[in-house]
Amino acid sequence: MTADPQERLEELRRAIDNFDAALVHILAERFRCTQAVGRLKAKHGMPPADPAREQSQVRRLRELADEAGLDPAFAEAFLNFVISEVIRNHEKVRGSTARP
Amino acid sequence: MTADPQERLEELRRAIDNFDAALVHILAERFRCTQAVGRLKAKHGMPPADPAREQSQVRRLRELADEAGLDPAFAEAFLNFVISEVIRNHEKVRGSTARP
Repeated sequence: MTADPQERLEELRRAIDNFDAALVHILAERFRCTQAVGRLKAKHGMPPADPAREQSQVRRLRELADEAGLDPAFAEAFLNFVISEVIRNHEKVRGSTARP
Repeated sequence: MTADPQERLEELRRAIDNFDAALVHILAERFRCTQAVGRLKAKHGMPPADPAREQSQVRRLRELADEAGLDPAFAEAFLNFVISEVIRNHEKVRGSTARP
């Protein structure tokens, strides 16, 4: 660790950039899964949203966040942000596969 | 891969849960870095927001997202969501370390 504030800032930013690359790649795989879920649900007439599943996801993520030292409220807001994007996609998939 | 839709759904959900745990743990470390950035900036009187840095982060993440098969618009919205939380935290740190 360097004592120069500007160098220390650059060092931290390099770490942040690496974490962001990891986040983007995991999010890409997560979306592949939720897209498969969306197609499966559309094909078998399952409802796009599942409140019980979402509640258990929120509860679990808040616990994991707490253990990891992340603000559980942020983890919940983050999950809601991702889920709302997923539901938007499911509705698009449903729209495009709907048969008259 | 199973042919039963309910089993396949459970299988995909287990993968999503694993990705979410990974995301929470990476976000926790990312916040440790941005908190260190916040303290460093507060200590040395650097401005909390840095538009040039944010622009280059957005550009890079959109490229990475594109390569990874993730919607670049989602990657950008995700980064903005995380950055707005970080700036909120920086302002709190700045407030709590401000000297009269």
